[in-house]
Amino acid sequence: MFNFNYYTPTKVIFGRKTEEKVADLIKEFGGTKVLIHYGGGSVVRSGLLQRVTDTLDKAGIAYVTLGGAVPNPHLSLVYEGIELCRKEGVDFLLAVGGGSAIDSAKAIGYGVTNEGDVWDFYDYKRQAKACLPLGVILTIAATGSEMSDSSVITKEDGLVKRGYSSDFGRAKFAIMNPELTMTLPDYQTACGCTDIMMHTMERYFTNGGNMEITDSMAEGLLRTVMTNAEILVKNPKDYDARAEVMWAGSLSHNGLTGCGNDGGDWMTHKLEHELGGLYDVAHGAGLAAIWGSWARYVYKDCLPRFRRFAINVMGVEPAGSDEEIALKGIEALEAFFRRINMPINLRELGVNATDEDLALMAHKCAVGVNGAKGSAKLLREADMLAIFKASR
Amino acid sequence: MFNFNYYTPTKVIFGRKTEEKVADLIKEFGGTKVLIHYGGGSVVRSGLLQRVTDTLDKAGIAYVTLGGAVPNPHLSLVYEGIELCRKEGVDFLLAVGGGSAIDSAKAIGYGVTNEGDVWDFYDYKRQAKACLPLGVILTIAATGSEMSDSSVITKEDGLVKRGYSSDFGRAKFAIMNPELTMTLPDYQTACGCTDIMMHTMERYFTNGGNMEITDSMAEGLLRTVMTNAEILVKNPKDYDARAEVMWAGSLSHNGLTGCGNDGGDWMTHKLEHELGGLYDVAHGAGLAAIWGSWARYVYKDCLPRFRRFAINVMGVEPAGSDEEIALKGIEALEAFFRRINMPINLRELGVNATDEDLALMAHKCAVGVNGAKGSAKLLREADMLAIFKASR
Repeated sequence: MFNFNYYTPTKVIFGRKTEEKVADLIKEFGGTKVLIHYGGGSVVRSGLLQRVTDTLDKAGIAYVTLGGAVPNPHLSLVYEGIELCRKEGVDFLLAVGGGSAIDSAKAIGYGVTNEGDVWDFYDYKRQAKACLPLGVILTIAATGSEMSDSSVITKEDGLVKRGYSSDFGRAKFAIMNPELTMTLPDYQTACGCTDIMMHTMERYFTNGGNMEITDSMAEGLLRTVMTNAEILVKNPKDYDARAEVMWAGSLSHNGLTGCGNDGGDWMTHKLEHELGGLYDVAHGAGLAAIWGSWARYVYKDCLPRFRRFAINVMGVEPAGSDEEIALKGIEALEAFFRRINMPINLRELGVNATDEDLALMAHKCAVGVNGAKGSAKLLREADMLAIFKASR
Repeated sequence: MFNFNYYTPTKVIFGRKTEEKVADLIKEFGGTKVLIHYGGGSVVRSGLLQRVTDTLDKAGIAYVTLGGAVPNPHLSLVYEGIELCRKEGVDFLLAVGGGSAIDSAKAIGYGVTNEGDVWDFYDYKRQAKACLPLGVILTIAATGSEMSDSSVITKEDGLVKRGYSSDFGRAKFAIMNPELTMTLPDYQTACGCTDIMMHTMERYFTNGGNMEITDSMAEGLLRTVMTNAEILVKNPKDYDARAEVMWAGSLSHNGLTGCGNDGGDWMTHKLEHELGGLYDVAHGAGLAAIWGSWARYVYKDCLPRFRRFAINVMGVEPAGSDEEIALKGIEALEAFFRRINMPINLRELGVNATDEDLALMAHKCAVGVNGAKGSAKLLREADMLAIFKASR
């Protein structure tokens, strides 16, 4: 068991109609001039953006808006947001959307409050010393960015996708109304459920210390997401299932499911970031497409955890050798991915990668992690390439 | 499922030697003149207090000290602390100890920053508008006060024990080193484990909405505490078991295990508060002594929850009628209490209550909850008296 810090200051306002409280919350946290940052047209089409601006107008809170945050959000829009905030004297960021809008807003917040190029933080060059205060109205349950310290940005030049983590980037508040996620396309819902599970699984599959309380809560979270992801395949409008998944999304990435371990593995995420940088695939689907190949490559080096996962999360009978049990758990999770219509390899993801593409991604990934990373098994460039090849 | 707020801003620093970071943390949260508040002599005898003051001296942070916080902490000491803080210009509170020192410190913090009598808040008369910033070095895993919004104070005049909850009272930081809990007497360790379990169980036994993710995490937490409480009976110096219990203590009362429900039942706590007010018994032992009688009185009105508890927490086989399963769960928890040497009735608690005592406690309890309270079953004064009688 390792020492750990746990810091989740984000005030969560969860449930029906909670977006009506946005103006009060902005005032509570001292915002007087807001940048409302959002993604594509869905928050416009749904009328949510209009309702938010109406609420701010009524409360006398000034704002400017900036849309256009795309999945794997772009650095160029971040620069645009920084410039806009400086010009307009913005002192509070409100992200309306999912992880793309939130992550883009965090990057804008770092850029406004720190000197120099904001990309430095994502390029492992230096640490941010502040961030603009940020509030969130969440419309997609997936990245957990609404309670996490992390954000992921893609630099278009070279298609480099990088994550940066800092407590300064934790949101002041997060408004979570499960009803706002009901209009999501089924594919995106399933991608979100996959991403949520992976945030806990990346922390779960380690060779570092672990805590029983962390494991037991992580396992409960994973079982809950699986049950409700399957409900949502059949009935996307099920409020309770939407709520279970939405709250799991925050708890899965706010640090709770990693307390006492060594920080986690995170290689499925790192590998997927290269996929996402090169092909612009949906993050959750990319994770599902790689996970099985990663798991089969590493499980013998992390056998107690894969065995426990198989039994406690996937319901595998504890009969046979540890390896057999572990493999059955991997197969059971792939079967679950299929049931929620997620890909379990690159072909099903729609990616026809050449040998050169795979080599490039493995190389970029290895550079991105300074040569080697992973707790379930330490992976170097050759290992990464082998996993990419197995996932084709 | 109900809407909920979740707000746990306390920065947790968990693990070995973490108390060495106390000066940095006080500075991080703006403290310049500190009241170090503690309980009996144990933090003096263990040398912890000396190490803390040495660290503050070295960092150039001024402080005054106030010891003497007792279990069921007294209002008179709170008044003394308020006066001392005002006289000395204290701007930061550091509680070193368990729930008694923390709760007493919270009350001092309310008193310093609000006009009028601080008891008003505990007497349901008005709401606090602020609290002095508070840091904690935890030495007893039990009340969860280090991350919770609540504090419980006893007014000596009339022996009235009352709780008050406010987000202002949430600690800025909590330093948790499981090693600091190793010298606790076995009885107090078991009392702590009981209190920790009850904080989740009070939230679990409801007839309001529930969330699967909350339930599954609550059940994992309860199983973890039980396993490790039994380990600590045999080996009080087991670091990992101390750590599991300590972290469970915070998570059990920071709101996590109640998300989506109706607020919980809380009648075992309310009944025990009357016991604690009248007899000055250890809070955890008082809870254990009452719970079985409460459970048998209410379980038929909350049968699905008692059935689920029996199966998922106590490991009862799901065979027989729901009532049979529920009763087996109640019996199993009482058997666990016995294994960790907790009382399961007033006699074992060492309380020889007269009919008049029981009637007085039931009456005070009913007044304290404005006539009736409880979610598993709504209890009025006659019900409270019946439970007290059954627990004798």
